[in-house]
Amino acid sequence: MTSYTPPSEKDINQFIDMVSFNADGLASAIAQQHDTKKILMQAWVNRDSLYKTLATGQVCYFSRSRQKLWTKGETSGQTQELIEARLDCDGDSLLLLVHQNGVACHTGRTTCFFNALTPEGIIHTEEPLISPEKLYGHHPHPK
Amino acid sequence: MTSYTPPSEKDINQFIDMVSFNADGLASAIAQQHDTKKILMQAWVNRDSLYKTLATGQVCYFSRSRQKLWTKGETSGQTQELIEARLDCDGDSLLLLVHQNGVACHTGRTTCFFNALTPEGIIHTEEPLISPEKLYGHHPHPK
Repeated sequence: MTSYTPPSEKDINQFIDMVSFNADGLASAIAQQHDTKKILMQAWVNRDSLYKTLATGQVCYFSRSRQKLWTKGETSGQTQELIEARLDCDGDSLLLLVHQNGVACHTGRTTCFFNALTPEGIIHTEEPLISPEKLYGHHPHPK
Repeated sequence: MTSYTPPSEKDINQFIDMVSFNADGLASAIAQQHDTKKILMQAWVNRDSLYKTLATGQVCYFSRSRQKLWTKGETSGQTQELIEARLDCDGDSLLLLVHQNGVACHTGRTTCFFNALTPEGIIHTEEPLISPEKLYGHHPHPK
């Protein structure tokens, strides 16, 4: 696994200044496992959570349901370690190349994108590797 | 390249009914090249554009700037052919596995996510393969 070397404070701030946050102060963030290229999840960052992510290398989102910073894995232990952050052409969407420790989805699956529409119908592409109860005690909380 | 076999009307509607569209009637849609797993872009779909995408296999977004359906490549010729659609655990984000014809980004790059924050500074991960002028005449329009 590649480890994260934080860029300079100046470069971090310059990168964040390139982001077009929406009216709620949020930008989309897609997490992709850096080596397998599997898409793990899509969530949201605000300015503070993005700064924390880029400065520490521990991925931190903004939880819309809880309206607060959400360091991925803070409850479940399933943390995401940043490898590299990328920003799209119009600045409102981030791609986070990460190393996922354990599973990304609160259902216990490796990815949140497990509902597939196929010619044979709607299927789950994978089943949970671990139960939500094991991940969260008896109080799972989705993003 | 795998071709797209449209699911039944019933399955398409059942899948769309699983989507949690936001207050603007939109859900996030991430396009990933199905074989290389490269992330191409992130845009938005409404109910109509998602139906069109799933029924025809030609990816159609909803343009927030133009407030209308936007069949990818309708102006530039850089179409996206759907391979399979997936929906995430809480229903507000779609992953579209596609075959991209030509380049995905209106800047002429294969991906919209070309701004990378690295320990050495902010770099472009790739340069345009084709000029926006060639793609759009003299009127490029981003998403």
